[in-house]
Amino acid sequence: MNDLIQDMRTAIEKELQKQAARLDSPHSAPFHEMLTYHLGWTGTGAGPQATGKRIRPTLTLLCAAACGADWEPVLPAAAAIELVHNFSLVHDDIQDNSDMRRGRLTVWKIWGQPMAINVGDTLFSMANQAILDLAGAFPADHVIDAARTLHDTCLELTRGQFMDMSFEERTDVRLEEYWLMITGKTAALLSCCCSIGALLGGADEAARDAYRAFGHYLGLAFQAQDDILGIWGDEAQTGKSAASDLVEGKKSLPILYGLKQDGAFKKRWQAGPVKAEEVPGLAAQLAREGAHEYTQKAADQLTEQAQQSLRLAAPQGAAGDYLEKLASKLLRRET
Amino acid sequence: MNDLIQDMRTAIEKELQKQAARLDSPHSAPFHEMLTYHLGWTGTGAGPQATGKRIRPTLTLLCAAACGADWEPVLPAAAAIELVHNFSLVHDDIQDNSDMRRGRLTVWKIWGQPMAINVGDTLFSMANQAILDLAGAFPADHVIDAARTLHDTCLELTRGQFMDMSFEERTDVRLEEYWLMITGKTAALLSCCCSIGALLGGADEAARDAYRAFGHYLGLAFQAQDDILGIWGDEAQTGKSAASDLVEGKKSLPILYGLKQDGAFKKRWQAGPVKAEEVPGLAAQLAREGAHEYTQKAADQLTEQAQQSLRLAAPQGAAGDYLEKLASKLLRRET
Repeated sequence: MNDLIQDMRTAIEKELQKQAARLDSPHSAPFHEMLTYHLGWTGTGAGPQATGKRIRPTLTLLCAAACGADWEPVLPAAAAIELVHNFSLVHDDIQDNSDMRRGRLTVWKIWGQPMAINVGDTLFSMANQAILDLAGAFPADHVIDAARTLHDTCLELTRGQFMDMSFEERTDVRLEEYWLMITGKTAALLSCCCSIGALLGGADEAARDAYRAFGHYLGLAFQAQDDILGIWGDEAQTGKSAASDLVEGKKSLPILYGLKQDGAFKKRWQAGPVKAEEVPGLAAQLAREGAHEYTQKAADQLTEQAQQSLRLAAPQGAAGDYLEKLASKLLRRET
Repeated sequence: MNDLIQDMRTAIEKELQKQAARLDSPHSAPFHEMLTYHLGWTGTGAGPQATGKRIRPTLTLLCAAACGADWEPVLPAAAAIELVHNFSLVHDDIQDNSDMRRGRLTVWKIWGQPMAINVGDTLFSMANQAILDLAGAFPADHVIDAARTLHDTCLELTRGQFMDMSFEERTDVRLEEYWLMITGKTAALLSCCCSIGALLGGADEAARDAYRAFGHYLGLAFQAQDDILGIWGDEAQTGKSAASDLVEGKKSLPILYGLKQDGAFKKRWQAGPVKAEEVPGLAAQLAREGAHEYTQKAADQLTEQAQQSLRLAAPQGAAGDYLEKLASKLLRRET
């Protein structure tokens, strides 16, 4: 990892710790611990593996730097976005009934659902506080613009989450709805990173739009790629057991495409839960019906759109180079 | 109800509907319905009984008006506070496993916990958006100040919620911790109403501090009064079955006082769950040990402090009069 990215990651961790310290008082010590556990700093398995990759705050800082601005003053916004991401993960794990996150027990699994709901709410509150820490370093109008962008994104996140949960119950989900769902659930926050980074980096409206579009397409492409890995990926690459989407009955893009084909895949899918031993055969059947090719083509097109948007944004200097690298690493799931 | 309060309530409802409309799109119609149900506008039992009393937004507008300012431009802040209150109620109902709220089934009881967590998150996001709608009508610095006050309050709320939940597991809760808990859980948001109302009403720092203190003491006094009703109140007054705090094992102020006395009450309390038929006898025992008198004295003192703070704030005109009336009604639980 190069020096700029390493400097950014160190500074992000420091800023996150500063933000989380708002809760560090004698009467809330066990509460503060739940937060620092989730953020990867304390408890069993603490360390770089447990913090996650901090992709969103790094992206935010890179966009600002690629506009030719100093990235340090942007840190409160980067931290705010990472806190929003983590609030959504804590609530997501309850909603999905997930026991593990980044190789460790989830917050609700350790402290129970009521406490975990509150931990998520706290991370959300801290994100709202963090974004306003931009005041002083930036004109008040820009602070309000950045905060509004963040809050609008949070509404998109909850809308995406609603659609995702409602898909579980439904048998009539259309491909068009899938795209709307991941626009909210995945693309909105990446788009927010780029939009806020560009705003605070001093980009004009056209460049900011291009950065925003870059984040949007990056998010969609990433999700389509992730959906492929969820069926045809191997465990080493994804960190979770391969083909789990088939077993979990998750309505991902290849599966919705397969259902639309109305063939052997659909017939088996509708017959009831898929067992682990059926996965290789069913994944191969889904590929024969064109779902792998369709999803890969969508991912490639979206990647191309992300790259075009980035060229339009014309990122500068070393940060610009790293931005391109980060994007291609992200899309190949190497970072 | 007089004209000013009626005008405010009508305008608050309209502003809340405007804020909630952010989610009103074809793909999220069933989701929007969960929100409008909780806010009391749709579904079984919809109407004034289901909306709640909108005490917090009314208090916000009254404080601004009592500073001599127009209250209409303050509406987005009033709506933001009411949305925060409602977000906390939706999550609270899950955390407390409560089936009913304002005489209707709770959101999680109808749509399940995962959806209800998301409904709370959405109301929270909308609150954050609403407060920024002050921009344009107020200087950007004041908008940031108001938003920061709201977000700091949300962190206090989550800290109070943590303490409240941790009390359930603990047998060593001290009276001092009780006051800290209700400062976060009840007083912080009422204090926030008054602080933001005064800020936007153009109060100077000293007056704003007085308004903030008024809300703080009002919240503490209200909670102490509520704790009395939770043991010695009757169902008609509280809307819930009397003495439920004894049955629910809730560590309210009179109960913590009783446990400190180390007498017959404590002995019975520690022996296991209290049955409904034991309530009259145990409530009388708790009163004999001085818990009713202690709590009533605390409530009276806090009420006096609230009234003193309000006098210091020197509220003006009709709004000032209504502010005093609202406070005394609230403390006698008549409104």
